[in-house]
Amino acid sequence: MEKFTLEQVAEHKTTTSCWVIIQNNVYDVTDFLFDHPGGANVILRYAGQDATAAYVPIHPSDALEKTLAPEKYLGSLNSESIIRLKEGGKNKVQTRDELRVEEAVKSKPPLKRIINVEDMEEEVAKKVLPYKAMAYYASTADDSITHFENCRAFSRFFFHPRVMTPVSGCDTSTTILSYKSSIPVYISGAALARLGHPLGEVNLTRGAHKTGILQMVSSNSSLSYAEIAAARASRDQPLFFQLYKHRNDTTAEKRIREVEALGYNAIFLTVDALVPGNRELDIRSSNYLEDFENQDLSAQSKTDVDEGEADRLGTAGGLVVNNDTDMTWQKTIPWIRNITKLPIVIKGVQCVQDAVLACEAGCEGIVLSNHGGRQLEYSLPPIELLYKIQQQRPDVFEKTEVYIDGAIRRGTDVVKALCLGAKAVGLGRTFLYAQSAYGEAGVVHVVRILQREILFVMQSLGVQKISELVPQMVERVDWQAASRAKL
Amino acid sequence: MEKFTLEQVAEHKTTTSCWVIIQNNVYDVTDFLFDHPGGANVILRYAGQDATAAYVPIHPSDALEKTLAPEKYLGSLNSESIIRLKEGGKNKVQTRDELRVEEAVKSKPPLKRIINVEDMEEEVAKKVLPYKAMAYYASTADDSITHFENCRAFSRFFFHPRVMTPVSGCDTSTTILSYKSSIPVYISGAALARLGHPLGEVNLTRGAHKTGILQMVSSNSSLSYAEIAAARASRDQPLFFQLYKHRNDTTAEKRIREVEALGYNAIFLTVDALVPGNRELDIRSSNYLEDFENQDLSAQSKTDVDEGEADRLGTAGGLVVNNDTDMTWQKTIPWIRNITKLPIVIKGVQCVQDAVLACEAGCEGIVLSNHGGRQLEYSLPPIELLYKIQQQRPDVFEKTEVYIDGAIRRGTDVVKALCLGAKAVGLGRTFLYAQSAYGEAGVVHVVRILQREILFVMQSLGVQKISELVPQMVERVDWQAASRAKL
Amino acid sequence: MEKFTLEQVAEHKTTTSCWVIIQNNVYDVTDFLFDHPGGANVILRYAGQDATAAYVPIHPSDALEKTLAPEKYLGSLNSESIIRLKEGGKNKVQTRDELRVEEAVKSKPPLKRIINVEDMEEEVAKKVLPYKAMAYYASTADDSITHFENCRAFSRFFFHPRVMTPVSGCDTSTTILSYKSSIPVYISGAALARLGHPLGEVNLTRGAHKTGILQMVSSNSSLSYAEIAAARASRDQPLFFQLYKHRNDTTAEKRIREVEALGYNAIFLTVDALVPGNRELDIRSSNYLEDFENQDLSAQSKTDVDEGEADRLGTAGGLVVNNDTDMTWQKTIPWIRNITKLPIVIKGVQCVQDAVLACEAGCEGIVLSNHGGRQLEYSLPPIELLYKIQQQRPDVFEKTEVYIDGAIRRGTDVVKALCLGAKAVGLGRTFLYAQSAYGEAGVVHVVRILQREILFVMQSLGVQKISELVPQMVERVDWQAASRAKL
Amino acid sequence: MEKFTLEQVAEHKTTTSCWVIIQNNVYDVTDFLFDHPGGANVILRYAGQDATAAYVPIHPSDALEKTLAPEKYLGSLNSESIIRLKEGGKNKVQTRDELRVEEAVKSKPPLKRIINVEDMEEEVAKKVLPYKAMAYYASTADDSITHFENCRAFSRFFFHPRVMTPVSGCDTSTTILSYKSSIPVYISGAALARLGHPLGEVNLTRGAHKTGILQMVSSNSSLSYAEIAAARASRDQPLFFQLYKHRNDTTAEKRIREVEALGYNAIFLTVDALVPGNRELDIRSSNYLEDFENQDLSAQSKTDVDEGEADRLGTAGGLVVNNDTDMTWQKTIPWIRNITKLPIVIKGVQCVQDAVLACEAGCEGIVLSNHGGRQLEYSLPPIELLYKIQQQRPDVFEKTEVYIDGAIRRGTDVVKALCLGAKAVGLGRTFLYAQSAYGEAGVVHVVRILQREILFVMQSLGVQKISELVPQMVERVDWQAASRAKL
Repeated sequence: MEKFTLEQVAEHKTTTSCWVIIQNNVYDVTDFLFDHPGGANVILRYAGQDATAAYVPIHPSDALEKTLAPEKYLGSLNSESIIRLKEGGKNKVQTRDELRVEEAVKSKPPLKRIINVEDMEEEVAKKVLPYKAMAYYASTADDSITHFENCRAFSRFFFHPRVMTPVSGCDTSTTILSYKSSIPVYISGAALARLGHPLGEVNLTRGAHKTGILQMVSSNSSLSYAEIAAARASRDQPLFFQLYKHRNDTTAEKRIREVEALGYNAIFLTVDALVPGNRELDIRSSNYLEDFENQDLSAQSKTDVDEGEADRLGTAGGLVVNNDTDMTWQKTIPWIRNITKLPIVIKGVQCVQDAVLACEAGCEGIVLSNHGGRQLEYSLPPIELLYKIQQQRPDVFEKTEVYIDGAIRRGTDVVKALCLGAKAVGLGRTFLYAQSAYGEAGVVHVVRILQREILFVMQSLGVQKISELVPQMVERVDWQAASRAKL
Repeated sequence: MEKFTLEQVAEHKTTTSCWVIIQNNVYDVTDFLFDHPGGANVILRYAGQDATAAYVPIHPSDALEKTLAPEKYLGSLNSESIIRLKEGGKNKVQTRDELRVEEAVKSKPPLKRIINVEDMEEEVAKKVLPYKAMAYYASTADDSITHFENCRAFSRFFFHPRVMTPVSGCDTSTTILSYKSSIPVYISGAALARLGHPLGEVNLTRGAHKTGILQMVSSNSSLSYAEIAAARASRDQPLFFQLYKHRNDTTAEKRIREVEALGYNAIFLTVDALVPGNRELDIRSSNYLEDFENQDLSAQSKTDVDEGEADRLGTAGGLVVNNDTDMTWQKTIPWIRNITKLPIVIKGVQCVQDAVLACEAGCEGIVLSNHGGRQLEYSLPPIELLYKIQQQRPDVFEKTEVYIDGAIRRGTDVVKALCLGAKAVGLGRTFLYAQSAYGEAGVVHVVRILQREILFVMQSLGVQKISELVPQMVERVDWQAASRAKL
Repeated sequence: MEKFTLEQVAEHKTTTSCWVIIQNNVYDVTDFLFDHPGGANVILRYAGQDATAAYVPIHPSDALEKTLAPEKYLGSLNSESIIRLKEGGKNKVQTRDELRVEEAVKSKPPLKRIINVEDMEEEVAKKVLPYKAMAYYASTADDSITHFENCRAFSRFFFHPRVMTPVSGCDTSTTILSYKSSIPVYISGAALARLGHPLGEVNLTRGAHKTGILQMVSSNSSLSYAEIAAARASRDQPLFFQLYKHRNDTTAEKRIREVEALGYNAIFLTVDALVPGNRELDIRSSNYLEDFENQDLSAQSKTDVDEGEADRLGTAGGLVVNNDTDMTWQKTIPWIRNITKLPIVIKGVQCVQDAVLACEAGCEGIVLSNHGGRQLEYSLPPIELLYKIQQQRPDVFEKTEVYIDGAIRRGTDVVKALCLGAKAVGLGRTFLYAQSAYGEAGVVHVVRILQREILFVMQSLGVQKISELVPQMVERVDWQAASRAKL
Repeated sequence: MEKFTLEQVAEHKTTTSCWVIIQNNVYDVTDFLFDHPGGANVILRYAGQDATAAYVPIHPSDALEKTLAPEKYLGSLNSESIIRLKEGGKNKVQTRDELRVEEAVKSKPPLKRIINVEDMEEEVAKKVLPYKAMAYYASTADDSITHFENCRAFSRFFFHPRVMTPVSGCDTSTTILSYKSSIPVYISGAALARLGHPLGEVNLTRGAHKTGILQMVSSNSSLSYAEIAAARASRDQPLFFQLYKHRNDTTAEKRIREVEALGYNAIFLTVDALVPGNRELDIRSSNYLEDFENQDLSAQSKTDVDEGEADRLGTAGGLVVNNDTDMTWQKTIPWIRNITKLPIVIKGVQCVQDAVLACEAGCEGIVLSNHGGRQLEYSLPPIELLYKIQQQRPDVFEKTEVYIDGAIRRGTDVVKALCLGAKAVGLGRTFLYAQSAYGEAGVVHVVRILQREILFVMQSLGVQKISELVPQMVERVDWQAASRAKL
């Protein structure tokens, strides 16, 4: 293989010839520029230069191999250039955001002071994350109303606790798709864990094993599906796969076959995020950082020229551009069944009729979800939809397993969902935050908190096991109680 | 024509002889003083002086010709006086408000940073507008409750999105009164665009053409109806006319015949703002500026003397004083039909019964509107009234086109209205703000934002075209969700 | 008559012999001490001293004569003592509160800047009033919730405005107990006007005449009933009398006969404030001023000794201690009928049943009132009670005139009440504030504001006269709209 | 008995040999370490040292005798060591929190300035309490929503006051379990009164006697049941006992027999706090104080190690660890009946069904309570549950006495509960705060305030005695009125 100098690479910095360095290797990405899901601009920012720092945290290790033809790998830097690159990295002036993070990490509280999920998210994770990562994780649709209402909706449901029943032997365990779980909570698929922690999704896999819960892996994980599978305690540790179906059926089929071969145990087909959501915090993050790092804004263009809506993708936008936006119940479900024997769960059901259609299509489960308030604003809060199904079509619960996700933070939230018919609930961002803040230990800690809270609620309701939780234990009140939700 | 010196003009500064200079011409306005819709006081402030700066932005170019007899044009200033006036203008000390605006314009963000309608209004337009213009545009009735509730009402309507349906070919276009529109949004009539930008209404006409949407022109536009018509890309570009019917039928008829002759394509008869609304921000703006410019308030009268309610007109008040306050369905609609063949739309319907009466009167359309919360406080939010008609009299939607306006800022708002039966929605102030901030480019930018948002919502609901939006896709929930509305 | 020196008076400063000076006259109040409705303590604070400044603003001129036996008037100060008293008054150091008021009066805005009722109350009156007067006027029961809800309740009522009807001849006038009123608003009885302005209730009488509205005079007015009657433009100007029935029937009868003789035109028997309300702002005002004037609080008693609930009366408490707390429909109404032929209105009806009972007792009118939120916390807002009567017992409106009061501040409030069946509405504190701020001119100004607002609302609803206002024009919505109310 | 030096004691500071000094006596607590309800860690903090200051306020005087075998009392300090200990105490530097409290006590207002319950709690007690005591008293479950809603729920209930009825003879007295009470309010069992005042529960007993109300004594009182009984005015002063049933039946029986022998008059069996609630303010209080006292936090462990959820007990946790979590209606009630003839009241009923079951089990009373929002979050507000029973099962009120507790602060709250069927209401924390702030006088003062408020409400409703309070006098409105509740 050829060896290059930094100067040689630097000559290829245009759309007609664009090279980049990633981990000391040199790639020709000219032809790929306009196929890049995140847009050409993001690559061109690093044309002729080292892109490692920006590239690594958001791409799994097999991404280059899966997207570039072998001949586009041109060779590596020569050793003198490698040394210069390394020295340059050392001498680089820290950005203001890096300095902020450094301070935040220093004053991070010891893990034992984290006594609820909100502590983990608000008091630690959002502070120690780089702004861009925080903006990607935290960003929700439009005015964040759906995100807020997801959480606030729980405050309309009150308990009817029973007293004078034995609860000393109370047990929080259950099954999800027949796999055992220590609590009725699973790690929901959420993209790009390495934005928050170098070990990324592996923290989740290990934490799930240690606490006996189940993990769903995102199509957009920042580690390869194989790396995550390899982090399992054994092949017996179940993994679920959150599938974003590619618009190209062949590519989509390859992805399904890959995860099945790796031993993944179920397909959660995502249907509520096929087009990019309007996540303004994420979209604005570049502007924010530009202003934050460079106080002199005088150079900004002031001409009143309409340039369309430039730079709208943020970190999130690129992840969905190749999604299949023309799926149907009639076509897509049988197509998947044809490829795999894994159970199929529809993630993103948002109305009663579609819950019924999913049953009719024979799906093994459905997730009532509005994508954590990150997609359509004013999609019903999942707990409200669950209640509606319980009222209108309770037969759904007999035909398929029903899960919900979105803004669940307390044991009370979990138990309310279970009373109303849910088999389990998913938490996505919470676990991303936990591993960002404390790695694997953060994940374990969150599960312990939830388990304690769920146990307490069950005992306070007077039940000994999950199956005793019934709709009569919950009342939808006609007032809006206070909620921990903040807008 | 005679030539005058500044000194000569200055001698005529009383109610018995009142001359003013407008664009170097001298006019005798003595007889007109008490016919001035904005009151005599406003003119007397400039008696014997140059009134150009105050006059121009709020009067169309044909206003003098339409209101003054030809002999009241006395002649022009002599050239030496013209030079002195110009020098005087240059040497004039800037007011504090002018300085504030100058600073605001300097720190105006580039247009591409504007990613939603609120950015445009709150982050830019309200900051770069002179206080008086801002106060006129932004002012709403009494305690601003109707304005606030117009917006907040949208938060009681949630979606029932459908998944697993093809949406790749989704199309946002529709028709309004059979004219094609790229999105179900039109520019609603709103007065005095030149308060915000020298090109005024022309920015709207050009922006509408560029983006394929329709414009309604206000009776109180700050350019003449002819100037606006002349700004069309071609005679094929449709224009709607918002008619305030003059109390004098002859004057009113002249206005209708004028716009029809200019090629305007519909009459939107305004019926909800016949008497001046109580817009306190506007009414107080003179006091505000007086205090802001002159910190020493010791000269203010302190005697406890009842002088009635003086100076209540603000910028808005003068616009409506000649409106016909005695219109009826029986008399007025046939009278208009007699004059013109243009379709008639009633703008300002506020209850179910009047929607029905408008159908019976054969109107081609109705706008459910409370004048953007600028007239009667506690008039129902238009989206609530739309919902009520959908519940009680769905036949209205078969008999006439129904539009709504008021506080629409997001694609979700637009699509909710369409699901509930609206043919399109109007935005007035938003476009005034957009052209104030960035001229024509601002108008185009706002349409692009709305088009993106509407497309996203339609795709997220699982529909391909406007006609698939149906009432079943929207639920009026029994709680009050958070809203972006601020009081 | 004897002449006294200050030293002579000063010797009588105990409960066994207590003299006070009022307007240079000397009174022996020893025997009266424990009959004083405001408690003995209030008097003892001035024992042996001049009590004029504290006494005058809250007692009508005939109070001494009505309460003290003639022989208790001992004589007057000698002229040298009068001069010394006057000099002492001049040299008196101003209190901090007096200095604050002085500043506030200086920066009082000119009356024409007052464009709504809230301006009058919040921007001027509360600032220029002495703290103690403000606290008495503004104080409401317990946590001020009823006061707040009185106001907020109006925000649940929206209009159904009609368009395309003639409104140019709109007329706001009506009658109350057959007396003509220019607007459906009367001045409600409210005590102690001289706390806010030296002319006190006379400002109200003159303002009422000038604007053609009606005044109800409080039993606890700070001018004598005769002085107020004398302020009428003529004997034809009607006056209503708000009766607090004394527990002693003879005393009560004397009061009724007195006002009838003076030409008062109706009796408004107050039934909702027979025992002292818990008005904490008023009760705390002494403590507040003590702290405000004297920053050194070290002298305060700190011993944990239970002294009961001392000093609870405030300014208000003393006014009601002699009320008859054992009135009944069967006994009291006939008793009054026996004394007078004046119409009887029951002020303070708070539930549907009592509205019905008042009709059965033959009362000419009822005021739905919770005493402006100054008595029982969580008494229903009057507009809600009005709505309830409209729903359950509309026959009440045929049998008697119904008024409401409490937190009415806008024309919309007035018209909502009229649509729902009220004949007129009362404003009490608003007029106290107005006369405190600007004397008679303030009263006139407030009426003008209300008249303009009422006219505007009527025209916007499409009506020409009061009798066209009907229940169908108002809808009680199922959400809580924003309100100007502040807690 | 042996005499020890401080040095001798100091040698025993590990889990293998752990001695502590309490009031100059030396105890060997090695064997007891892991039976300590509050956990071993709390003791080990004082191993080999003087534990008096921490021990005394939260343990009744008979606690050592009840828990330690006689031989574990090893002897006392020698007199020289006693002196050194005393000197050491004197020289001890005050903590920042002690200094804060000292200042707060200095500026404590005189008792007569306390005019409502909130004054007592917020303005005085919370300020003069040590942080740890405040945190224990004030702490509520999870996000404090239940606590907040307990209070806010009262704001949905409005009155229908009756006028024109005699109220001069109004009487607030009633009976509870046939014992006479001057007002329908009792002191509810609340633990650890000596945290707030050296006399602790005795303040309550004396205050109850002085004002003629009834006291319920907590199982976790900080004085022995005998000491409290001894504080009674006479054996005729009734005392109720709040029983936490020990998991060991023998221990439990001993406790019941003890209180019966002491003359206690009823058993209030607590059923809603069998497992430790998640009271975060209490749990965090150690961290808070650590940070408050020691600004240098650099020593804190930062390693991301999962140590489980350490130190969760707070002050509250230890109190419940030995509770019987397997009680049933069938087993437990007959078991108690077998031991004692005292009436049995179930404290902590939280749904209609359990109210019915309690009746069927023959209980003499039930307390509708969610433990003041300190246990299960989203347990219904007691006033809502009371209303529900009134609607669904009014027969309950005929079969048993019903009380409620939780967030009652005003006379209006009390009277609403009584109208809806409650026999009386309990206040726990309020009396803890009152005695913390002003000792016995504080308790008396609070009762006086409540009595005045209750009397006022009754008179304003038009009733003369408690039995006239009926459901028709209260309406549950469909809006959420403002409330004094703060989150």
